[in-house]
Amino acid sequence: MLTFKRLSIEDARLLIAGAAEKARDIGVPMCIAIVDESGNLIAFERMDGGKTSSVLIAQDKAYTAAAARKATHEYNAANVPGSLAFGIHTEAGGRISSVGGGLPVIVDGEVVGGIGLSSGTPQQDMDCAQAGIDYFQGKRQ
Amino acid sequence: MLTFKRLSIEDARLLIAGAAEKARDIGVPMCIAIVDESGNLIAFERMDGGKTSSVLIAQDKAYTAAAARKATHEYNAANVPGSLAFGIHTEAGGRISSVGGGLPVIVDGEVVGGIGLSSGTPQQDMDCAQAGIDYFQGKRQ
Amino acid sequence: MLTFKRLSIEDARLLIAGAAEKARDIGVPMCIAIVDESGNLIAFERMDGGKTSSVLIAQDKAYTAAAARKATHEYNAANVPGSLAFGIHTEAGGRISSVGGGLPVIVDGEVVGGIGLSSGTPQQDMDCAQAGIDYFQGKRQ
Amino acid sequence: MLTFKRLSIEDARLLIAGAAEKARDIGVPMCIAIVDESGNLIAFERMDGGKTSSVLIAQDKAYTAAAARKATHEYNAANVPGSLAFGIHTEAGGRISSVGGGLPVIVDGEVVGGIGLSSGTPQQDMDCAQAGIDYFQGKRQ
Repeated sequence: MLTFKRLSIEDARLLIAGAAEKARDIGVPMCIAIVDESGNLIAFERMDGGKTSSVLIAQDKAYTAAAARKATHEYNAANVPGSLAFGIHTEAGGRISSVGGGLPVIVDGEVVGGIGLSSGTPQQDMDCAQAGIDYFQGKRQ
Repeated sequence: MLTFKRLSIEDARLLIAGAAEKARDIGVPMCIAIVDESGNLIAFERMDGGKTSSVLIAQDKAYTAAAARKATHEYNAANVPGSLAFGIHTEAGGRISSVGGGLPVIVDGEVVGGIGLSSGTPQQDMDCAQAGIDYFQGKRQ
Repeated sequence: MLTFKRLSIEDARLLIAGAAEKARDIGVPMCIAIVDESGNLIAFERMDGGKTSSVLIAQDKAYTAAAARKATHEYNAANVPGSLAFGIHTEAGGRISSVGGGLPVIVDGEVVGGIGLSSGTPQQDMDCAQAGIDYFQGKRQ
Repeated sequence: MLTFKRLSIEDARLLIAGAAEKARDIGVPMCIAIVDESGNLIAFERMDGGKTSSVLIAQDKAYTAAAARKATHEYNAANVPGSLAFGIHTEAGGRISSVGGGLPVIVDGEVVGGIGLSSGTPQQDMDCAQAGIDYFQGKRQ
Protein backbone atom coordinates (compact mmCIF):
# COMPACT_ATOMS: atom_id res chain seq x y z
CA MET A 1 0.00 0.00 0.00
CA LEU A 2 1.23 3.52 -0.80
CA THR A 3 0.70 6.75 1.12
CA PHE A 4 0.68 10.15 -0.56
CA LYS A 5 0.79 13.76 0.40
CA ARG A 6 -1.55 16.10 -1.44
CA LEU A 7 -2.34 19.81 -1.27
CA SER A 8 -5.43 20.67 0.79
CA ILE A 9 -7.94 23.30 -0.27
CA GLU A 10 -6.31 25.66 2.28
CA ASP A 11 -2.94 25.08 0.62
CA ALA A 12 -4.52 25.73 -2.77
CA ARG A 13 -5.94 29.05 -1.58
CA LEU A 14 -2.50 30.17 -0.41
CA LEU A 15 -1.04 29.36 -3.82
CA ILE A 16 -3.79 31.33 -5.55
CA ALA A 17 -3.46 34.27 -3.15
CA GLY A 18 0.28 34.60 -3.77
CA ALA A 19 -0.08 34.31 -7.53
CA ALA A 20 -2.98 36.77 -7.68
CA GLU A 21 -1.08 39.34 -5.63
CA LYS A 22 1.77 39.25 -8.13
CA ALA A 23 -0.71 39.43 -11.03
CA ARG A 24 -2.24 42.57 -9.55
CA ASP A 25 1.27 44.03 -9.06
CA ILE A 26 2.08 43.62 -12.76
CA GLY A 27 -1.43 44.62 -13.85
CA VAL A 28 -2.34 41.40 -15.70
CA PRO A 29 -5.55 39.64 -14.59
CA MET A 30 -4.86 35.91 -14.66
CA CYS A 31 -6.51 32.51 -14.70
CA ILE A 32 -4.97 30.48 -11.85
CA ALA A 33 -5.36 26.71 -11.48
CA ILE A 34 -4.19 24.46 -8.64
CA VAL A 35 -4.17 20.69 -9.05
CA ASP A 36 -3.28 17.78 -6.79
CA GLU A 37 -0.35 15.37 -7.19
CA SER A 38 -2.34 13.38 -9.80
CA GLY A 39 -3.21 16.48 -11.84
CA ASN A 40 -6.86 16.76 -10.77
CA LEU A 41 -8.23 20.25 -10.13
CA ILE A 42 -8.46 21.45 -6.52
CA ALA A 43 -9.09 25.16 -7.02
CA PHE A 44 -9.37 27.72 -9.79
CA GLU A 45 -9.89 31.46 -10.00
CA ARG A 46 -10.32 33.67 -13.04
CA MET A 47 -9.49 37.18 -11.90
CA ASP A 48 -11.85 39.85 -13.28
CA GLY A 49 -10.53 40.39 -16.82
CA GLY A 50 -8.77 37.03 -17.19
CA LYS A 51 -9.08 35.49 -20.66
CA THR A 52 -11.67 32.78 -21.34
CA SER A 53 -9.19 30.86 -23.52
CA SER A 54 -6.93 30.70 -20.47
CA VAL A 55 -9.48 28.76 -18.42
CA LEU A 56 -8.34 25.49 -19.96
CA ILE A 57 -4.73 26.53 -20.61
CA ALA A 58 -4.09 27.31 -16.93
CA GLN A 59 -5.54 23.94 -15.95
CA ASP A 60 -3.45 22.09 -18.53
CA LYS A 61 -0.26 23.81 -17.36
CA ALA A 62 -0.99 22.85 -13.75
CA TYR A 63 -1.87 19.30 -14.83
CA THR A 64 1.37 18.95 -16.77
CA ALA A 65 3.53 20.33 -13.95
CA ALA A 66 2.03 18.02 -11.30
CA ALA A 67 1.35 14.83 -13.23
CA ALA A 68 4.64 14.91 -15.16
CA ARG A 69 6.47 16.48 -12.19
CA LYS A 70 8.11 19.00 -14.47
CA ALA A 71 7.77 22.73 -15.07
CA THR A 72 6.11 23.44 -18.41
CA HIS A 73 9.04 25.66 -19.41
CA GLU A 74 11.31 22.63 -19.03
CA TYR A 75 9.14 20.79 -21.53
CA ASN A 76 9.35 23.90 -23.66
CA ALA A 77 13.14 23.68 -23.73
CA ALA A 78 12.98 20.02 -24.76
CA ASN A 79 10.17 20.51 -27.28
CA VAL A 80 12.29 21.50 -30.28
CA PRO A 81 12.66 19.71 -33.61
CA GLY A 82 15.44 17.13 -33.41
CA SER A 83 14.94 16.51 -29.68
CA LEU A 84 13.62 13.06 -28.82
CA ALA A 85 10.89 14.80 -26.79
CA PHE A 86 9.68 16.89 -29.73
CA GLY A 87 5.90 16.76 -30.06
CA ILE A 88 5.28 16.09 -26.36
CA HIS A 89 2.76 18.98 -26.28
CA THR A 90 0.10 17.00 -28.14
CA GLU A 91 0.28 13.96 -25.85
CA ALA A 92 -2.25 12.89 -23.24
CA GLY A 93 -5.13 14.09 -25.34
CA GLY A 94 -3.38 17.42 -25.85
CA ARG A 95 -3.28 18.20 -22.13
CA ILE A 96 0.54 18.30 -21.92
CA SER A 97 1.55 21.96 -22.11
CA SER A 98 4.97 23.14 -23.24
CA VAL A 99 4.14 26.80 -22.69
CA GLY A 100 5.78 28.49 -19.70
CA GLY A 101 3.54 29.06 -16.67
CA GLY A 102 3.12 25.67 -14.99
CA LEU A 103 5.19 24.66 -11.95
CA PRO A 104 5.13 21.59 -9.70
CA VAL A 105 4.57 22.25 -5.99
CA ILE A 106 7.19 20.38 -3.99
CA VAL A 107 7.15 19.68 -0.24
CA ASP A 108 9.85 17.60 1.46
CA GLY A 109 11.18 16.60 -1.92
CA GLU A 110 7.84 15.25 -3.09
CA VAL A 111 5.51 16.69 -5.75
CA VAL A 112 2.22 17.33 -3.92
CA GLY A 113 0.48 19.36 -6.64
CA GLY A 114 0.86 21.89 -9.42
CA ILE A 115 0.08 25.50 -10.24
CA GLY A 116 -0.74 26.85 -13.70
CA LEU A 117 -1.17 30.46 -14.81
CA SER A 118 -2.42 31.87 -18.08
CA SER A 119 -3.45 35.24 -19.56
CA GLY A 120 -0.10 37.08 -19.72
CA THR A 121 3.08 36.40 -21.64
CA PRO A 122 4.66 33.04 -20.75
CA GLN A 123 7.26 34.90 -18.66
CA GLN A 124 4.54 36.79 -16.77
CA ASP A 125 2.67 33.54 -16.23
CA MET A 126 5.88 31.93 -14.90
CA ASP A 127 6.62 34.83 -12.56
CA CYS A 128 3.14 34.71 -11.05
CA ALA A 129 3.26 30.92 -10.68
CA GLN A 130 6.56 31.26 -8.82
CA ALA A 131 5.09 34.00 -6.62
CA GLY A 132 2.28 31.63 -5.71
CA ILE A 133 4.75 28.95 -4.66
CA ASP A 134 6.90 31.40 -2.69
CA TYR A 135 3.87 32.69 -0.79
CA PHE A 136 2.66 29.15 -0.08
CA GLN A 137 6.06 28.00 1.15
CA GLY A 138 6.26 30.98 3.52
CA LYS A 139 2.78 30.54 4.97
CA ARG A 140 2.11 26.80 5.10
CA GLN A 141 2.05 25.08 8.47
CA MET B 1 -23.85 46.12 -29.66
CA LEU B 2 -25.31 44.25 -26.70
CA THR B 3 -24.56 44.80 -23.01
CA PHE B 4 -24.39 42.01 -20.43
CA LYS B 5 -23.91 41.48 -16.71
CA ARG B 6 -21.58 38.77 -15.44
CA LEU B 7 -20.55 37.49 -12.01
CA SER B 8 -17.26 38.90 -10.68
CA ILE B 9 -14.71 36.77 -8.83
CA GLU B 10 -16.00 38.29 -5.57
CA ASP B 11 -19.52 37.16 -6.45
CA ALA B 12 -18.18 33.70 -7.27
CA ARG B 13 -16.47 33.44 -3.88
CA LEU B 14 -19.76 34.26 -2.10
CA LEU B 15 -21.52 31.50 -4.02
CA ILE B 16 -18.80 29.00 -3.10
CA ALA B 17 -18.77 30.09 0.55
CA GLY B 18 -22.51 29.58 0.94
CA ALA B 19 -22.48 26.21 -0.79
CA ALA B 20 -19.46 24.97 1.18
CA GLU B 21 -21.02 25.97 4.49
CA LYS B 22 -24.08 23.85 3.70
CA ALA B 23 -21.84 20.99 2.54
CA ARG B 24 -20.02 21.06 5.88
CA ASP B 25 -23.38 21.13 7.71
CA ILE B 26 -24.50 17.92 6.01
CA GLY B 27 -21.03 16.36 6.21
CA VAL B 28 -20.49 15.86 2.48
CA PRO B 29 -17.31 17.41 0.97
CA MET B 30 -18.22 18.81 -2.45
CA CYS B 31 -16.78 20.00 -5.73
CA ILE B 32 -18.20 23.48 -6.38
CA ALA B 33 -18.00 25.25 -9.75
CA ILE B 34 -19.05 28.79 -10.63
CA VAL B 35 -19.33 29.88 -14.27
CA ASP B 36 -20.18 33.12 -16.03
CA GLU B 37 -23.31 33.83 -18.09
CA SER B 38 -21.78 32.04 -21.12
CA GLY B 39 -20.76 28.97 -19.12
CA ASN B 40 -17.03 29.67 -18.77
CA LEU B 41 -15.41 28.84 -15.43
CA ILE B 42 -14.81 31.69 -12.97
CA ALA B 43 -14.00 29.77 -9.79
CA PHE B 44 -13.81 26.21 -8.52
CA GLU B 45 -13.11 24.53 -5.20
CA ARG B 46 -12.84 20.88 -4.36
CA MET B 47 -13.34 20.61 -0.62
CA ASP B 48 -10.96 18.19 1.12
CA GLY B 49 -12.51 14.80 0.41
CA GLY B 50 -14.48 15.86 -2.71
CA LYS B 51 -14.56 13.26 -5.48
CA THR B 52 -12.19 13.54 -8.44
CA SER B 53 -14.93 12.40 -10.84
CA SER B 54 -16.94 15.38 -9.64
CA VAL B 55 -14.36 17.90 -10.86
CA LEU B 56 -15.83 17.81 -14.36
CA ILE B 57 -19.40 16.97 -13.32
CA ALA B 58 -19.67 20.08 -11.15
CA GLN B 59 -18.35 22.21 -14.02
CA ASP B 60 -20.76 20.66 -16.52
CA LYS B 61 -23.73 21.24 -14.20
CA ALA B 62 -22.76 24.89 -13.78
CA TYR B 63 -22.20 25.22 -17.54
CA THR B 64 -25.62 23.75 -18.31
CA ALA B 65 -27.45 25.91 -15.80
CA ALA B 66 -25.88 29.15 -17.06
CA ALA B 67 -25.58 28.55 -20.80
CA ALA B 68 -29.01 26.92 -21.15
CA ARG B 69 -30.52 29.12 -18.40
CA LYS B 70 -32.17 26.12 -16.80
CA ALA B 71 -31.63 24.10 -13.61
CA THR B 72 -30.19 20.69 -14.38
CA HIS B 73 -33.01 19.03 -12.44
CA GLU B 74 -35.45 20.63 -14.90
CA TYR B 75 -33.59 18.92 -17.74
CA ASN B 76 -33.75 15.77 -15.64
CA ALA B 77 -37.54 15.94 -15.54
CA ALA B 78 -37.71 16.34 -19.35
CA ASN B 79 -35.02 13.73 -20.12
CA VAL B 80 -37.22 10.62 -20.10
CA PRO B 81 -37.81 8.17 -22.96
CA GLY B 82 -40.74 9.38 -25.04
CA SER B 83 -40.16 13.06 -24.25
CA LEU B 84 -39.06 15.14 -27.24
CA ALA B 85 -36.07 16.27 -25.17
CA PHE B 86 -34.84 12.74 -24.45
CA GLY B 87 -31.12 12.44 -25.08
CA ILE B 88 -30.38 16.10 -24.26
CA HIS B 89 -27.77 14.98 -21.68
CA THR B 90 -25.29 13.93 -24.35
CA GLU B 91 -25.53 17.14 -26.38
CA ALA B 92 -22.93 19.89 -26.70
CA GLY B 93 -20.08 17.41 -26.59
CA GLY B 94 -21.62 15.72 -23.57
CA ARG B 95 -21.45 18.87 -21.46
CA ILE B 96 -25.22 19.20 -20.97
CA SER B 97 -26.04 17.69 -17.57
CA SER B 98 -29.46 16.39 -16.58
CA VAL B 99 -28.35 15.42 -13.07
CA GLY B 100 -29.62 17.59 -10.24
CA GLY B 101 -27.14 20.07 -8.75
CA GLY B 102 -26.79 22.87 -11.30
CA LEU B 103 -28.67 26.18 -10.89
CA PRO B 104 -28.62 29.42 -12.87
CA VAL B 105 -27.69 32.53 -10.90
CA ILE B 106 -30.24 35.25 -11.62
CA VAL B 107 -29.89 38.96 -10.84
CA ASP B 108 -32.57 41.48 -11.86
CA GLY B 109 -34.23 38.81 -14.00
CA GLU B 110 -31.07 38.10 -15.99
CA VAL B 111 -28.92 34.95 -15.88
CA VAL B 112 -25.47 36.21 -14.86
CA GLY B 113 -23.83 32.84 -14.19
CA GLY B 114 -24.31 29.34 -12.85
CA ILE B 115 -23.37 27.15 -9.90
CA GLY B 116 -22.76 23.41 -10.05
CA LEU B 117 -22.22 20.98 -7.18
CA SER B 118 -21.16 17.36 -7.25
CA SER B 119 -20.04 14.64 -4.81
CA GLY B 120 -23.25 13.96 -2.86
CA THR B 121 -26.61 12.62 -3.92
CA PRO B 122 -28.30 14.81 -6.55
CA GLN B 123 -30.61 16.13 -3.81
CA GLN B 124 -27.66 17.02 -1.58
CA ASP B 125 -25.96 18.68 -4.55
CA MET B 126 -29.15 20.67 -5.25
CA ASP B 127 -29.51 21.74 -1.61
CA CYS B 128 -25.93 23.00 -1.47
CA ALA B 129 -26.25 24.81 -4.80
CA GLN B 130 -29.36 26.55 -3.51
CA ALA B 131 -27.56 27.45 -0.26
CA GLY B 132 -24.83 29.05 -2.34
CA ILE B 133 -27.36 31.18 -4.20
CA ASP B 134 -29.20 32.16 -1.00
CA TYR B 135 -25.96 33.26 0.64
CA PHE B 136 -24.90 35.20 -2.46
CA GLN B 137 -28.26 36.97 -2.77
CA GLY B 138 -28.08 38.00 0.89
CA LYS B 139 -24.54 39.35 0.76
CA ARG B 140 -24.08 40.86 -2.71
CA GLN B 141 -23.84 44.61 -3.08
CA MET C 1 -18.95 9.24 -60.79
CA LEU C 2 -21.77 10.69 -58.69
CA THR C 3 -23.42 14.08 -58.90
CA PHE C 4 -25.08 15.76 -55.95
CA LYS C 5 -27.32 18.69 -55.25
CA ARG C 6 -26.46 20.88 -52.27
CA LEU C 7 -27.91 24.00 -50.70
CA SER C 8 -26.18 27.24 -51.72
CA ILE C 9 -25.45 30.05 -49.26
CA GLU C 10 -28.46 31.88 -50.72
CA ASP C 11 -30.66 28.86 -49.99
CA ALA C 12 -29.24 28.74 -46.48
CA ARG C 13 -30.11 32.38 -45.88
CA LEU C 14 -33.72 31.75 -46.93
CA LEU C 15 -33.97 28.87 -44.46
CA ILE C 16 -32.57 31.06 -41.67
CA ALA C 17 -34.85 33.98 -42.56
CA GLY C 18 -37.98 31.84 -42.40
CA ALA C 19 -36.99 30.20 -39.13
CA ALA C 20 -36.00 33.50 -37.51
CA GLU C 21 -39.28 35.14 -38.49
CA LYS C 22 -41.19 32.37 -36.72
CA ALA C 23 -38.86 32.62 -33.71
CA ARG C 24 -39.61 36.33 -33.43
CA ASP C 25 -43.34 35.60 -33.73
CA ILE C 26 -43.24 33.25 -30.74
CA GLY C 27 -40.77 35.45 -28.84
CA VAL C 28 -37.97 32.90 -28.46
CA PRO C 29 -34.52 33.96 -29.75
CA MET C 30 -32.97 30.92 -31.42
CA CYS C 31 -29.72 29.43 -32.62
CA ILE C 32 -30.24 28.38 -36.26
CA ALA C 33 -27.86 26.10 -38.17
CA ILE C 34 -27.95 25.11 -41.84
CA VAL C 35 -25.79 22.26 -43.12
CA ASP C 36 -25.21 20.69 -46.52
CA GLU C 37 -26.18 17.18 -47.65
CA SER C 38 -23.07 15.77 -45.90
CA GLY C 39 -23.80 17.55 -42.62
CA ASN C 40 -21.14 20.27 -42.93
CA LEU C 41 -22.09 23.76 -41.78
CA ILE C 42 -23.10 26.31 -44.43
CA ALA C 43 -24.58 29.06 -42.28
CA PHE C 44 -25.40 29.82 -38.67
CA GLU C 45 -27.05 32.63 -36.77
CA ARG C 46 -27.51 33.12 -33.04
CA MET C 47 -30.33 35.62 -32.65
CA ASP C 48 -29.71 38.22 -29.92
CA GLY C 49 -30.56 36.32 -26.72
CA GLY C 50 -30.05 32.80 -28.12
CA LYS C 51 -28.44 30.39 -25.67
CA THR C 52 -24.72 29.64 -25.86
CA SER C 53 -25.34 25.96 -25.12
CA SER C 54 -27.52 25.90 -28.22
CA VAL C 55 -24.66 26.87 -30.53
CA LEU C 56 -23.54 23.24 -30.74
CA ILE C 57 -26.95 21.66 -30.23
CA ALA C 58 -28.45 23.45 -33.24
CA GLN C 59 -25.51 22.32 -35.39
CA ASP C 60 -25.81 18.72 -34.20
CA LYS C 61 -29.53 18.65 -34.94
CA ALA C 62 -28.92 19.95 -38.46
CA TYR C 63 -26.05 17.48 -38.93
CA THR C 64 -28.21 14.57 -37.83
CA ALA C 65 -31.14 15.53 -40.03
CA ALA C 66 -29.01 15.91 -43.18
CA ALA C 67 -26.37 13.21 -42.74
CA ALA C 68 -28.82 10.59 -41.46
CA ARG C 69 -31.63 11.93 -43.69
CA LYS C 70 -34.04 11.79 -40.79
CA ALA C 71 -35.79 14.34 -38.58
CA THR C 72 -34.36 14.34 -35.06
CA HIS C 73 -37.85 13.82 -33.63
CA GLU C 74 -38.04 10.58 -35.63
CA TYR C 75 -34.87 9.41 -33.90
CA ASN C 76 -36.49 10.54 -30.68
CA ALA C 77 -39.44 8.22 -31.25
CA ALA C 78 -37.09 5.29 -31.89
CA ASN C 79 -34.71 6.12 -29.05
CA VAL C 80 -36.57 4.33 -26.26
CA PRO C 81 -35.39 1.41 -24.12
CA GLY C 82 -36.23 -1.88 -25.83
CA SER C 83 -36.02 -0.43 -29.32
CA LEU C 84 -33.10 -1.71 -31.41
CA ALA C 85 -32.16 1.93 -32.06
CA PHE C 86 -31.94 2.80 -28.37
CA GLY C 87 -28.74 4.72 -27.60
CA ILE C 88 -28.39 6.19 -31.09
CA HIS C 89 -27.98 9.68 -29.53
CA THR C 90 -24.44 8.99 -28.36
CA GLU C 91 -23.21 7.75 -31.75
CA ALA C 92 -20.91 9.56 -34.18
CA GLY C 93 -18.95 11.11 -31.37
CA GLY C 94 -22.17 12.24 -29.73
CA ARG C 95 -23.22 14.33 -32.72
CA ILE C 96 -26.41 12.34 -33.40
CA SER C 97 -29.28 14.25 -31.79
CA SER C 98 -32.56 12.67 -30.76
CA VAL C 99 -34.03 15.95 -29.53
CA GLY C 100 -36.74 17.50 -31.70
CA GLY C 101 -35.68 20.50 -33.82
CA GLY C 102 -33.67 19.07 -36.72
CA LEU C 103 -35.21 18.54 -40.17
CA PRO C 104 -33.77 17.38 -43.48
CA VAL C 105 -34.22 19.77 -46.41
CA ILE C 106 -35.58 17.86 -49.37
CA VAL C 107 -35.69 19.02 -53.01
CA ASP C 108 -36.98 16.76 -55.80
CA GLY C 109 -37.03 13.83 -53.41
CA GLU C 110 -33.37 14.27 -52.50
CA VAL C 111 -31.89 15.43 -49.18
CA VAL C 112 -29.85 18.54 -50.04
CA GLY C 113 -29.17 19.76 -46.51
CA GLY C 114 -30.52 20.11 -43.00
CA ILE C 115 -31.79 22.73 -40.58
CA GLY C 116 -31.38 22.64 -36.80
CA LEU C 117 -32.91 24.93 -34.18
CA SER C 118 -32.21 25.21 -30.48
CA SER C 119 -33.05 27.50 -27.54
CA GLY C 120 -36.78 26.85 -27.09
CA THR C 121 -38.72 23.75 -26.15
CA PRO C 122 -38.24 20.89 -28.62
CA GLN C 123 -41.70 21.64 -30.03
CA GLN C 124 -40.83 25.33 -30.51
CA ASP C 125 -37.55 24.32 -32.14
CA MET C 126 -39.44 21.96 -34.47
CA ASP C 127 -42.03 24.60 -35.39
CA CYS C 128 -39.34 27.13 -36.30
CA ALA C 129 -37.35 24.56 -38.28
CA GLN C 130 -40.50 23.76 -40.27
CA ALA C 131 -41.17 27.46 -40.82
CA GLY C 132 -37.68 27.78 -42.27
CA ILE C 133 -38.33 24.97 -44.72
CA ASP C 134 -41.75 26.34 -45.70
CA TYR C 135 -40.28 29.77 -46.40
CA PHE C 136 -37.42 28.28 -48.39
CA GLN C 137 -39.71 26.09 -50.49
CA GLY C 138 -41.88 29.09 -51.30
CA LYS C 139 -39.02 31.39 -52.30
CA ARG C 140 -36.39 29.20 -53.94
CA GLN C 141 -35.87 29.47 -57.68
CA MET D 1 -21.08 42.21 -10.85
CA LEU D 2 -19.25 43.01 -14.12
CA THR D 3 -20.66 44.64 -17.24
CA PHE D 4 -19.39 44.07 -20.75
CA LYS D 5 -20.22 44.61 -24.41
CA ARG D 6 -20.82 41.96 -27.05
CA LEU D 7 -21.46 41.99 -30.81
CA SER D 8 -25.10 41.71 -31.86
CA ILE D 9 -26.28 39.59 -34.80
CA GLU D 10 -26.54 42.82 -36.84
CA ASP D 11 -22.92 43.61 -36.04
CA ALA D 12 -21.95 40.07 -37.03
CA ARG D 13 -23.68 40.40 -40.40
CA LEU D 14 -21.73 43.60 -41.15
CA LEU D 15 -18.47 41.81 -40.39
CA ILE D 16 -19.41 38.94 -42.70
CA ALA D 17 -20.58 41.28 -45.47
CA GLY D 18 -17.29 43.19 -45.48
CA ALA D 19 -15.18 40.05 -45.44
CA ALA D 20 -17.23 38.33 -48.16
CA GLU D 21 -17.00 41.36 -50.44
CA LYS D 22 -13.20 41.24 -50.22
CA ALA D 23 -13.25 37.48 -50.77
CA ARG D 24 -15.25 37.96 -53.96
CA ASP D 25 -12.79 40.67 -55.08
CA ILE D 26 -9.84 38.30 -54.80
CA GLY D 27 -11.84 35.37 -56.14
CA VAL D 28 -11.46 33.07 -53.13
CA PRO D 29 -14.69 31.71 -51.59
CA MET D 30 -14.25 31.72 -47.80
CA CYS D 31 -15.61 30.32 -44.58
CA ILE D 32 -16.32 33.28 -42.28
CA ALA D 33 -17.00 32.93 -38.55
CA ILE D 34 -18.00 35.63 -36.07
CA VAL D 35 -17.86 34.96 -32.31
CA ASP D 36 -18.72 36.96 -29.21
CA GLU D 37 -16.28 38.29 -26.61
CA SER D 38 -16.10 34.86 -24.95
CA GLY D 39 -15.48 33.00 -28.20
CA ASN D 40 -18.97 31.57 -28.73
CA LEU D 41 -20.30 31.54 -32.30
CA ILE D 42 -22.74 34.28 -33.32
CA ALA D 43 -22.77 33.85 -37.11
CA PHE D 44 -21.12 31.80 -39.82
CA GLU D 45 -21.24 31.67 -43.60
CA ARG D 46 -19.53 29.31 -45.99
CA MET D 47 -19.50 31.04 -49.35
CA ASP D 48 -20.32 28.75 -52.27
CA GLY D 49 -17.05 26.92 -52.89
CA GLY D 50 -15.62 27.42 -49.38
CA LYS D 51 -13.69 24.43 -48.04
CA THR D 52 -15.35 22.01 -45.63
CA SER D 53 -12.13 21.71 -43.60
CA SER D 54 -12.33 25.45 -43.10
CA VAL D 55 -15.67 25.25 -41.28
CA LEU D 56 -13.93 24.49 -37.99
CA ILE D 57 -10.69 26.35 -38.77
CA ALA D 58 -12.53 29.63 -39.30
CA GLN D 59 -14.39 29.13 -36.01
CA ASP D 60 -11.19 28.32 -34.12
CA LYS D 61 -9.44 31.39 -35.51
CA ALA D 62 -12.34 33.59 -34.42
CA TYR D 63 -12.43 31.88 -31.02
CA THR D 64 -8.72 32.43 -30.48
CA ALA D 65 -8.80 36.07 -31.52
CA ALA D 66 -11.72 36.91 -29.22
CA ALA D 67 -11.08 34.69 -26.20
CA ALA D 68 -7.32 35.33 -26.09
CA ARG D 69 -7.72 38.91 -27.37
CA LYS D 70 -4.94 38.43 -29.85
CA ALA D 71 -4.69 38.11 -33.64
CA THR D 72 -3.84 34.55 -34.66
CA HIS D 73 -0.87 35.83 -36.70
CA GLU D 74 0.56 37.25 -33.47
CA TYR D 75 0.40 33.76 -31.95
CA ASN D 76 2.01 32.55 -35.16
CA ALA D 77 5.00 34.85 -34.63
CA ALA D 78 5.43 33.57 -31.05
CA ASN D 79 4.84 29.91 -31.89
CA VAL D 80 8.37 28.96 -32.95
CA PRO D 81 10.64 26.33 -31.36
CA GLY D 82 12.66 27.92 -28.58
CA SER D 83 9.99 30.52 -27.75
CA LEU D 84 8.35 30.06 -24.34
CA ALA D 85 4.97 30.07 -26.13
CA PHE D 86 5.86 27.21 -28.48
CA GLY D 87 3.09 24.65 -28.61
CA ILE D 88 0.32 27.14 -27.85
CA HIS D 89 -1.54 26.02 -31.00
CA THR D 90 -2.59 22.72 -29.45
CA GLU D 91 -3.91 24.24 -26.20
CA ALA D 92 -7.53 24.56 -25.10
CA GLY D 93 -8.47 21.27 -26.69
CA GLY D 94 -6.69 22.25 -29.89
CA ARG D 95 -8.92 25.29 -30.42
CA ILE D 96 -6.10 27.86 -30.17
CA SER D 97 -5.08 28.72 -33.73
CA SER D 98 -1.70 30.16 -34.68
CA VAL D 99 -2.58 30.39 -38.38
CA GLY D 100 -3.15 33.89 -39.77
CA GLY D 101 -6.79 34.85 -40.37
CA GLY D 102 -8.28 35.53 -36.94
CA LEU D 103 -8.65 39.07 -35.59
CA PRO D 104 -10.23 40.46 -32.42
CA VAL D 105 -13.02 42.99 -32.95
CA ILE D 106 -12.37 46.02 -30.75
CA VAL D 107 -14.85 48.78 -29.88
CA ASP D 108 -13.93 51.60 -27.49
CA GLY D 109 -10.78 49.73 -26.51
CA GLU D 110 -12.67 46.60 -25.52
CA VAL D 111 -12.67 43.22 -27.29
CA VAL D 112 -16.33 42.60 -28.15
CA GLY D 113 -15.86 39.62 -30.46
CA GLY D 114 -13.69 38.01 -33.09
CA ILE D 115 -13.66 37.23 -36.80
CA GLY D 116 -12.03 34.19 -38.39
CA LEU D 117 -11.53 33.42 -42.07
CA SER D 118 -10.35 30.25 -43.75
CA SER D 119 -10.10 28.78 -47.28
CA GLY D 120 -7.38 30.96 -48.83
CA THR D 121 -3.73 31.44 -47.97
CA PRO D 122 -3.20 32.78 -44.45
CA GLN D 123 -2.44 36.19 -45.97
CA GLN D 124 -5.68 36.14 -47.99
CA ASP D 125 -7.57 35.05 -44.87
CA MET D 126 -5.98 37.93 -42.93
CA ASP D 127 -6.80 40.48 -45.64
CA CYS D 128 -10.45 39.43 -45.74
CA ALA D 129 -10.73 39.43 -41.94
CA GLN D 130 -9.36 42.97 -41.89
CA ALA D 131 -11.79 43.99 -44.63
CA GLY D 132 -14.62 42.68 -42.47
CA ILE D 133 -13.49 44.78 -39.53
CA ASP D 134 -13.00 47.91 -41.68
CA TYR D 135 -16.49 47.57 -43.12
CA PHE D 136 -18.00 47.01 -39.67
CA GLN D 137 -16.22 49.99 -38.15
CA GLY D 138 -17.47 52.22 -40.98
CA LYS D 139 -21.09 51.11 -40.77
CA ARG D 140 -21.83 50.39 -37.12
CA GLN D 141 -24.09 52.72 -35.16
